[in-house]
Amino acid sequence: MSEFNNVSVVKEANIYFDGSVTSRTIYFADGSRKTLGIMLPGEYTFNTGSAELMEILSGDLTVLLPGSSEWVAVKGGEAFEVPENSSFKLKIAAITDYCCSFL
Amino acid sequence: MSEFNNVSVVKEANIYFDGSVTSRTIYFADGSRKTLGIMLPGEYTFNTGSAELMEILSGDLTVLLPGSSEWVAVKGGEAFEVPENSSFKLKIAAITDYCCSFL
Repeated sequence: MSEFNNVSVVKEANIYFDGSVTSRTIYFADGSRKTLGIMLPGEYTFNTGSAELMEILSGDLTVLLPGSSEWVAVKGGEAFEVPENSSFKLKIAAITDYCCSFL
Repeated sequence: MSEFNNVSVVKEANIYFDGSVTSRTIYFADGSRKTLGIMLPGEYTFNTGSAELMEILSGDLTVLLPGSSEWVAVKGGEAFEVPENSSFKLKIAAITDYCCSFL
């Protein structure tokens, strides 16, 4: 069972798209930040501030990365990066559990 | 912004009712355990192992506690306790953000 140790967790959830996407924010001792989240089936557009590493813990989705015209399948155990100040789209086919690292 | 500090967080989400109820498990230095979760609108029956303290961070719901025949309204900032090895029902009227402590 994989864990993050010696971290701080913000109690209040981050809630997007009427609750179809939710996450909790985690701070590490070095000041870095990740969110652990759930996405329910649907199509979503996200905008980044910092660059992001999206690790898919479990689920089934396709992603349209900025500047791309091709939807790419992503499964549990896979990951993708998104540049800072950009936009990407996701089509979630099955409940997706993810970890987002802000780079 | 309220946080839990010096904790461990299990990466993998707990997923119930097809994702309508999800949570993350947090372990404290003293070995105690809480979950931070989201419940989407719907009706749910939960079974307890340990006794639980359910703190509602935000949301709108009613609860039917074991042995009771009366549904009781619970709002953000309120809490209720459930005995060990029992069952309770929730009717979630609006997205509910909660913290469950295992007693």
